[in-house]
Amino acid sequence: MSNKSLQRWLAEFTGTAFLLATVVGSGVMGEQLANGQAGLALLANAVATGAILYVLITILGPISGAHFNPAVTLGFFLRREISLRESMGFVAAQISGGILGVICAHLMFGMPPVLLSSHARMSNALWFSEIIATFGLLLVIFGGIRHNARAVPALVGLYITAAYWFTASTSFANPAVTISRALTESFSGIHYHSVPWFILMQLLGAVLAVMLSKVLFDRPVHATASS
Amino acid sequence: MSNKSLQRWLAEFTGTAFLLATVVGSGVMGEQLANGQAGLALLANAVATGAILYVLITILGPISGAHFNPAVTLGFFLRREISLRESMGFVAAQISGGILGVICAHLMFGMPPVLLSSHARMSNALWFSEIIATFGLLLVIFGGIRHNARAVPALVGLYITAAYWFTASTSFANPAVTISRALTESFSGIHYHSVPWFILMQLLGAVLAVMLSKVLFDRPVHATASS
Amino acid sequence: MSNKSLQRWLAEFTGTAFLLATVVGSGVMGEQLANGQAGLALLANAVATGAILYVLITILGPISGAHFNPAVTLGFFLRREISLRESMGFVAAQISGGILGVICAHLMFGMPPVLLSSHARMSNALWFSEIIATFGLLLVIFGGIRHNARAVPALVGLYITAAYWFTASTSFANPAVTISRALTESFSGIHYHSVPWFILMQLLGAVLAVMLSKVLFDRPVHATASS
Amino acid sequence: MSNKSLQRWLAEFTGTAFLLATVVGSGVMGEQLANGQAGLALLANAVATGAILYVLITILGPISGAHFNPAVTLGFFLRREISLRESMGFVAAQISGGILGVICAHLMFGMPPVLLSSHARMSNALWFSEIIATFGLLLVIFGGIRHNARAVPALVGLYITAAYWFTASTSFANPAVTISRALTESFSGIHYHSVPWFILMQLLGAVLAVMLSKVLFDRPVHATASS
Repeated sequence: MSNKSLQRWLAEFTGTAFLLATVVGSGVMGEQLANGQAGLALLANAVATGAILYVLITILGPISGAHFNPAVTLGFFLRREISLRESMGFVAAQISGGILGVICAHLMFGMPPVLLSSHARMSNALWFSEIIATFGLLLVIFGGIRHNARAVPALVGLYITAAYWFTASTSFANPAVTISRALTESFSGIHYHSVPWFILMQLLGAVLAVMLSKVLFDRPVHATASS
Repeated sequence: MSNKSLQRWLAEFTGTAFLLATVVGSGVMGEQLANGQAGLALLANAVATGAILYVLITILGPISGAHFNPAVTLGFFLRREISLRESMGFVAAQISGGILGVICAHLMFGMPPVLLSSHARMSNALWFSEIIATFGLLLVIFGGIRHNARAVPALVGLYITAAYWFTASTSFANPAVTISRALTESFSGIHYHSVPWFILMQLLGAVLAVMLSKVLFDRPVHATASS
Repeated sequence: MSNKSLQRWLAEFTGTAFLLATVVGSGVMGEQLANGQAGLALLANAVATGAILYVLITILGPISGAHFNPAVTLGFFLRREISLRESMGFVAAQISGGILGVICAHLMFGMPPVLLSSHARMSNALWFSEIIATFGLLLVIFGGIRHNARAVPALVGLYITAAYWFTASTSFANPAVTISRALTESFSGIHYHSVPWFILMQLLGAVLAVMLSKVLFDRPVHATASS
Repeated sequence: MSNKSLQRWLAEFTGTAFLLATVVGSGVMGEQLANGQAGLALLANAVATGAILYVLITILGPISGAHFNPAVTLGFFLRREISLRESMGFVAAQISGGILGVICAHLMFGMPPVLLSSHARMSNALWFSEIIATFGLLLVIFGGIRHNARAVPALVGLYITAAYWFTASTSFANPAVTISRALTESFSGIHYHSVPWFILMQLLGAVLAVMLSKVLFDRPVHATASS
């Protein structure tokens, strides 16, 4: 592996680790402080996650593109902007980084490093939520790259802050996040039985976004008979 | 329809759909989580809506102008910056997109696709609120375009976040949003009887804003007798 | 009055009107929705005010400088960047605009146009708070202009959001705001007996900020014996 | 001391004073208003601190670099970007400024100028939290400087807003802050017995960040056998 590839791999690994530490850590803090006011815990969770995404994408985006998300990597692969070989390395970095982030969050709050979640998340409504959430996320990324690349960190951070609230699933929208959150028995956890369905819906949303973004964000053909 | 027109129409449709999915979806989530603390539900609603507006206007603005709002389209029409023909297409896209967004929000939360709202919103205070809210929105858009066009997505997002709180109506300020919200029996709904009055006030606010913005944002005539 | 002067006057008037409509309106909304949770009302108040300040300064700053605040106008006058004559016009615009904003807020919530506040705000702690709040505000404005003029709207908005929370007075920091808020018997009101003291402290803070900003933000003299 | 050095020292002093006034002041306000809802107090604390950091770094960064933090100064010293002599001056400015900020916060809320905190913060979980918090902070600063220097004020503000929630310690991440907060018997206080451990962990986190940032943010060597 070249130094540059190592740097890219490390960027995906570190970024996804901090992302998961934030999602899980702020969820635990929310549970502890919010005195049963789940709305307040979710608001803090959404603000913290949006903020850290802006930060991580700004500092790591110039290195690896700051995917932190196998569904995003799939999207770039379908657009032929990343090789299959590097995609596989990215996904491995994202999943292992995510798991490290969960472990760090638990250690910061004095909990056992890993605990399987008992929080089942299985319903048509949640699955539809994950399709929409991931569809929107990739649309935002492709549209941002097309029209205002420097805004991408803010776009992703604010999209996720909103999506925490407008989807019933609180918007996982990320297979690496989904797998990692199976390892926490706290506010943000998901039972491992629910994981494959979430991932399936996320990949489906990603494919749909790649399709719509071709129509929406590719340059229009100006010289057609109908124009 | 040319490819470019289709792209513009699709941008208005998709953007308004995501806007309504956020307004209605975050309202449902707020109701479910906030344990009767309506202030918290409104805060989440305001933050989520402001965030998604920044996102949608950034990625779709370069395509269609990102009106998502017949009152905004009216404003640009009065300024002769959009044709009557395209205006009508935009309004159709906004209303149909808005309705799709409401349906998606309901499906994401496992509710029936459409339910008529029983929430009457009829009073002088609310009507005055809608005049002010829409007046302010268009003033912000025209002022932003005049003085800092790249800031428009943030201007609109933050204006709406504020207007949720400083108007008694929580600032619909948008006929397509008003019609669509008649179709949800949840936090953000509005009884269809109240809809025409809201729309009337919004259009009135838009006209007033076009007038004031001529004075405020047009270049001053420097060589007059009075100067 | 020249067209340009009229435009500047109108910008101060309109901006201060929207500022007060937001401060007072979001305070009323907070009181109504927060079910006695004053912390939530203040958070919404702080977010709404910070957001609208960003918006108003962005769209009106290029016209009048977007003072909306006699203490800010005093600061620029002491720096000889505005004439005495125009300063007096600005202050009149700010106070009359502010009062209009309060009236609009009341009408939007179905309240009588004007009510004198019974909320006494008299103590050494509050006075010291107003000195610090206004001192910080002007320091931020002068520092922003010196080092990153395009950031001034965000700087002022975020400073005020913070100052709502770190001062005991919730940071009026503005004589026009103080006078206007004497006219509302709601969350944000102030008894007219307390008004002169607040204004005195605000002007004192402004003078101190002008002095420190000379040392902090003027170019250092490089060729001195001590260097 | 030259004028320029004085200006730099004064920037560190003033900035750290406002930072502590915000951290401690917003903590007191949160305690008073939140009616035992600690989650709401922490949310306001996190928002206010993030906002003021953006403001202070924007206006003072061009003068001194806006460290406001001995761990940050250590990081720059290890990177040989600041002399030992100036580092020591900076740390003195940061600690004395921080203490002044705490005194101002107390006076603004009518409390005695200084009170020793009785809030013990001693556990492995808290220590690990401080390592991670400071490690992340310096990584963000170095990454921001490397890839988007104008974004550093927003990066630091938003990182700290997130870190309030994702660490068990609410992220002190700053020896000058830690020492100053020993002097307040309020929401944000820390018993002086806990201070040295926190500082030790912060310095450790800083050293680790300097090491990782060498790998992540230094230009990769392109011409190696393995590439």
